[in-house]
Amino acid sequence: MALIVQKYGGTSVGTVERIQAVAEKIAGFRARGDQVVVVVSAMSGETNRLIALANDMTDTPDPREMDVLVSTGEQVTIALLSMALHKLGLDARSYTGMQVRVLTDSTHTKARIEHIDDHNMRADLDAGRVVVVAGFQGVDAQGRITTLGRGGSDTTAVALAAALKADECQIYTDVDGVYTTDPRVVDNARRLNTITFEEMLEMASQGSKVLQIRAVEFAGKYGVPLRVLHSFQEGPGTLITVDDEVDMEKPVISGIAFTRDEAKIIVRGAPDTPGIAYKILGPVGAANIEVDMIVQNVGKDGAADFTFTVHRNDFKRAQQVLHDAAEELGNPEIIGDDKIAKVSLVGVGMRSHAGVASKMFQALADEGINIEMISTSEIKVSVVIAEKYLELAVRALHSAFELDHPVAS
Amino acid sequence: MALIVQKYGGTSVGTVERIQAVAEKIAGFRARGDQVVVVVSAMSGETNRLIALANDMTDTPDPREMDVLVSTGEQVTIALLSMALHKLGLDARSYTGMQVRVLTDSTHTKARIEHIDDHNMRADLDAGRVVVVAGFQGVDAQGRITTLGRGGSDTTAVALAAALKADECQIYTDVDGVYTTDPRVVDNARRLNTITFEEMLEMASQGSKVLQIRAVEFAGKYGVPLRVLHSFQEGPGTLITVDDEVDMEKPVISGIAFTRDEAKIIVRGAPDTPGIAYKILGPVGAANIEVDMIVQNVGKDGAADFTFTVHRNDFKRAQQVLHDAAEELGNPEIIGDDKIAKVSLVGVGMRSHAGVASKMFQALADEGINIEMISTSEIKVSVVIAEKYLELAVRALHSAFELDHPVAS
Repeated sequence: MALIVQKYGGTSVGTVERIQAVAEKIAGFRARGDQVVVVVSAMSGETNRLIALANDMTDTPDPREMDVLVSTGEQVTIALLSMALHKLGLDARSYTGMQVRVLTDSTHTKARIEHIDDHNMRADLDAGRVVVVAGFQGVDAQGRITTLGRGGSDTTAVALAAALKADECQIYTDVDGVYTTDPRVVDNARRLNTITFEEMLEMASQGSKVLQIRAVEFAGKYGVPLRVLHSFQEGPGTLITVDDEVDMEKPVISGIAFTRDEAKIIVRGAPDTPGIAYKILGPVGAANIEVDMIVQNVGKDGAADFTFTVHRNDFKRAQQVLHDAAEELGNPEIIGDDKIAKVSLVGVGMRSHAGVASKMFQALADEGINIEMISTSEIKVSVVIAEKYLELAVRALHSAFELDHPVAS
Repeated sequence: MALIVQKYGGTSVGTVERIQAVAEKIAGFRARGDQVVVVVSAMSGETNRLIALANDMTDTPDPREMDVLVSTGEQVTIALLSMALHKLGLDARSYTGMQVRVLTDSTHTKARIEHIDDHNMRADLDAGRVVVVAGFQGVDAQGRITTLGRGGSDTTAVALAAALKADECQIYTDVDGVYTTDPRVVDNARRLNTITFEEMLEMASQGSKVLQIRAVEFAGKYGVPLRVLHSFQEGPGTLITVDDEVDMEKPVISGIAFTRDEAKIIVRGAPDTPGIAYKILGPVGAANIEVDMIVQNVGKDGAADFTFTVHRNDFKRAQQVLHDAAEELGNPEIIGDDKIAKVSLVGVGMRSHAGVASKMFQALADEGINIEMISTSEIKVSVVIAEKYLELAVRALHSAFELDHPVAS
């Protein structure tokens, strides 16, 4: 008998029929004797419908009232799922975030969980009930309804699992696990049986959209075993777990993430004086534009070539900020390129293996792909390339690191 | 400066535009310096949409989860109205029933209010905020969401007004007040400036649909001045208030209510023995059928003629119950008639005026209308007549009691 926290997203509970299918899935776990806490999102489309109502009302909806409004979406789902469970003869009880009590700070529309009261849920579990909890929402110390931001239901599930010391937190989605890379790009991409929290974080931050970064961070911090599964297909999914150091056969590389969300800006010919990096990035940061990769070289004649990437949405604005500051920067040349892509190799195995980067660069060179920027961390190597080479690069790397078949052991 | 509780029903808040119009109305009261607490229903159609979802899920939805589900309807409205008030530059704060805390018993889907915590609302009013409260909902001692049943928002408004000792509770509807009778039947029906709680209760229970009976009872019990007004037309509406005994010019009759909702059942020729009334009505009551009017006469040969009315929906079932019990009743003749109507004169003035009933009977006789049953209370006389005479009877009585012009004073 295990205590399991399960989370079903908006698509999985998008219709009455799907909610009934979820109820049957839960009944299967109960029949095996497991205790189950279920976290649900709003039915797909409902949150957008509510936001549209608010936007019809005013251009600047009060974030506190926005939370009151959108939190009704999950409340509808918990009631309907509880009804569906009752219909199957299971005892179940629904909880809003306020009823649990999921205590958060007061940062409306993107609150952070501070504490979870597990008292009532535990009493229900002990009484043989399925506990059905509205994801994405909480309540602050003043008793006001808060929400955790888009995708916050994953975070709710992990936080509940941590509070209840659950044996596993299962995130049901529309994919059957975490893959070595996007199967739409590489035919023989392979589902991973396990991946470490660190790798999952890097995969997520590099563009892999399976899980919310916050939820993975939270699970890693509290050591909650997290499993990604398909809502309506059988299968083991992918278990995200702490780094198991005894596993010497750990593959060097676990996966390849990529993103087309970035754009590159080159500042060429600024004087190479102390503080030039700050002079360039200061105004960008002041404009609330986040910078990802940064590369600086000293060019000929002691002038600096400075390159950085921003989210593609901020591309035009970042260029404008630099043009406004051009005089102070010594009127450098400012060049922009938004036809780039970032490809990242991720794997805790590269910690103990030299040569990952050189093997990567060689594989790309063999395909005639020019590397425009490089950035490394302990378990990741990222390169920026021209966007047109993205698929070619991912396939070449997937093959070079033999990700299509499991590591020999 | 007055403290006013206002209630707007589903039609009044049925669209974003109407919610904005309600916000502007509230802004008018704030501009005059009034403190305002607003109670709102779900947007029209929303409650039915939610109930349909539950019925799609299961034939027997758990009433506790039904309350979790439908209470989201008002929660959407409080958020949107608060946003609309902010847009007009007013400070406002929304409250669900749980947040107020409207404490109720645990009779899900038709809970009764036990206590209202006015602490937070009062602090908001003192800080110059408009308080926006979800009608129809509360929370029980176990922290579960409850609802008060259809029309419960009126009750919420009156209960808040009582708890806050408000100067007036205003119920905004789609009519501009309480009329002497239905204006669709009598052209010169007249809006009443005032009516007593007792009269309003009788009018409501006799078929006038302006206000929920429970809300009127509640207002009467706590002496909350209650006013019915039109949501989007200017006007004084009708004030429902305690019986003002000094007003010697009180009209004898305040209004005429009527209903076609009833059906008549005659049990003819049952032996006139002690307990025969119980033998007849016992099985009817046991079948959960409510009986309204009851008349018993001893007919010829010592046999009893027993007549009673039930709701028209229960007509067939009540007859069946009696047929099933026929042997024990001495096999009487059982006759049914659902082509009847009930017409009631209501007025506290009839307490001190003899002759109301006889004047009523004469007016009906003058039109050739046969009276089939009569029932009286201290401030009401009801008659059952053939349904085809209903409009004629109401017009004749409206004219006979001179309801088309205000009483001389």
